[in-house]
Amino acid sequence: MTQLQVLLVAGTHGNEINGIWLFEQWEKSPFLINTHGIKTYKVIGNPEAKKAGKRYIDNDLNRSFLEESFSSINSSNIEAKRANQLVQLYGNSGENPCQIALDFHTTTASMGSCLVIYGRRNADLALAGLIQNKLGLPIYLHESDKKQTGFLVESWPCGLVIEIGPVGQGLLNSKIISQTKLILENLLEQIKNVNDLNLSSPEKLIIHRHVKSIDFPRDEEGNINCFVHPSRQGRDWYPLAKEDELFCEFNGESINFNEQQSFVPVFINEAAYMEKNIAMSFTKRELWDFDEKWEKSLIELVRQK
Amino acid sequence: MTQLQVLLVAGTHGNEINGIWLFEQWEKSPFLINTHGIKTYKVIGNPEAKKAGKRYIDNDLNRSFLEESFSSINSSNIEAKRANQLVQLYGNSGENPCQIALDFHTTTASMGSCLVIYGRRNADLALAGLIQNKLGLPIYLHESDKKQTGFLVESWPCGLVIEIGPVGQGLLNSKIISQTKLILENLLEQIKNVNDLNLSSPEKLIIHRHVKSIDFPRDEEGNINCFVHPSRQGRDWYPLAKEDELFCEFNGESINFNEQQSFVPVFINEAAYMEKNIAMSFTKRELWDFDEKWEKSLIELVRQK
Repeated sequence: MTQLQVLLVAGTHGNEINGIWLFEQWEKSPFLINTHGIKTYKVIGNPEAKKAGKRYIDNDLNRSFLEESFSSINSSNIEAKRANQLVQLYGNSGENPCQIALDFHTTTASMGSCLVIYGRRNADLALAGLIQNKLGLPIYLHESDKKQTGFLVESWPCGLVIEIGPVGQGLLNSKIISQTKLILENLLEQIKNVNDLNLSSPEKLIIHRHVKSIDFPRDEEGNINCFVHPSRQGRDWYPLAKEDELFCEFNGESINFNEQQSFVPVFINEAAYMEKNIAMSFTKRELWDFDEKWEKSLIELVRQK
Repeated sequence: MTQLQVLLVAGTHGNEINGIWLFEQWEKSPFLINTHGIKTYKVIGNPEAKKAGKRYIDNDLNRSFLEESFSSINSSNIEAKRANQLVQLYGNSGENPCQIALDFHTTTASMGSCLVIYGRRNADLALAGLIQNKLGLPIYLHESDKKQTGFLVESWPCGLVIEIGPVGQGLLNSKIISQTKLILENLLEQIKNVNDLNLSSPEKLIIHRHVKSIDFPRDEEGNINCFVHPSRQGRDWYPLAKEDELFCEFNGESINFNEQQSFVPVFINEAAYMEKNIAMSFTKRELWDFDEKWEKSLIELVRQK
C-alpha cells in the first residue's frame, strides 16, 4: 500500500508566473504551504517557455497531452516532449505515481478564482464540489469542444485546473499569489479530509457548462475589427441577455448578443486566446444534484493504496 | 519648401497591440483620425515582433536607436536592422523626411495616459507643454540613465513617447484604444496650432524628472523574492514618504521605503521591465517655468520648410 501523491503544476504556460513564483518561494521555505500531510510533487510545467517569457515554445503545453504526442516520443516539439516527460515522471503509472494533478493558471480575463474541469469525471466533480462548498468558487465544465483537447489534467485519474484573474501575462501580483496559495491549501485540506473520510460534499453543484466559444468579428482579410464592448469587458460570469452589447466597432457601433437563449460568458478577452480565435466562451449555468458515486470515486482514488 | 511631416509609430513593442489595432482601423477608414491637415506616416515599429506576439525578437527596438546600430548596417540583429530602416525611411534626412516622431506605447503599470520625453530638448518640452496645458497629462522626463538609451524618438529632431496603461500585453482594450486616439488627435491639433502660430503654451510645466530605477529585492541566487506591496501596486504618481510600504515578502513582512527624500514612483510593476531589473522608477516632481526658447524651437522645426 503506497501513499496518495498529488502533482502540483505551475507555469504550464510560461508567462503565467504567479504560481511559479509561489512554488519557488515554497521551495526555499518548506513550511510556507500547509500541505495537510499530503505528499506532493511540485513542478514547473513548461520551464523552457518560462525562460523565454512566453506561453509556449512550439505548441500550447496544455493542449499537448494527446495520444499522438505520447506515441511520438522522439518528437522535436518541445511541448510534446515535455508532456511525455511529465506523464513518465508523475503519471499514475510513472516513476513517482500521482493520482491527482492540480494545475495552477492565471488569466487576463476577470474570472476571479475558479475551477475548470474537463469532461464529467466522477472524482473531478467530487473534488470541485468540495471546494465549491468550502470557498464558493465557480466551476467551469469544459466539454464538447473538439478544437480544444489535450489538457494536462486529463492525463491523471483526477485533476483540476485553477484559473485566477485578471492579471497580465508576465506580471507578479500580490493578490493573485495570495489567491493561489489559499486555493492550493484548501485543495490539499479537502484531499486530506477525503482520506480521513471526513468530507462534507454539497447537495447541489453550480456548474457553468461550456456550450461554445465565439470569435471576434473580423473583416474580409480575417483581421479583428471589433473589440469587446466596454460594458461587457470584465463582466465574466454575468449572464448575457438578448440585445446586450457584446462587441464594439471603432465607429462606436455596437454588435449585440442576438441569440434566443441566454448564456453566461467566461474568459472574456483572454489575451492568449486571440490566436485560438476565441473572444469569449459561452456557458450555461446549471444546478446539478451532487451524485454520491462522484464522492465514492474520489474516496477510492485517494484511499486506493 | 516642403511640408512638415510627422511619423506615427505603434507597435515599437510587438505585444503592445492597441495602437497597432488603431492604426489598422485607420488604414481601412481614412477619416477615422482627424489629422488636422498634418501630413503623417504611420508605421508598425516592430512588425516581426508583432507577428511573434512578443515585445521584441533579438533586442528591445526602443533601445536600438544607437550610433553602434547605425554603423553596422549589415547586422543580423532584427531590431538593429529595423532601427536603421526606420531612420532611412522616415528620418529627418530619410526618403520621407519626418521632423517629429510620436511613438505610442502601452504599459501594464497604472500610469493612466502620460508623455515621456528623453533629455531636455527644446522642441520636445514645448510640444509636451502644449499637451499638458490641453489635457493635463503628466510628463515623465527620462534622463541620466546610462543603462537605458537608444530610444526611437531620439533619432528625430522632436519626438514624444505616449504611454497608456494599465493593460496587459497582447490585450485589446476599448478604453486604451480610445485614449490612444484622443491623444493622437490632440497632438496633431497642437502641431497644427504651432504651424498656424496659434498656440497657447502654459506658463509652468509639471515635470516628473527621472532620478533612478530600483530593482525587486532578490535572494542570493538573484531570484526575485518580494512582490510590489499591495498598498503600492497601481499607485503610480503617488508620492512615497519615508516608511511607506514598498515591497512585501511572502511571509507578509513589508520592505519599506527608507530614503530621506521623497520620490514619486512610476512604471510600478511594468511586466516588461522585470528583465531589465526594474521594479519601478523614482522621479522628482518639479514645477518648471516654461521657457520661450522651447516654443521658438518647436515653431522653427514645424515651419522650417
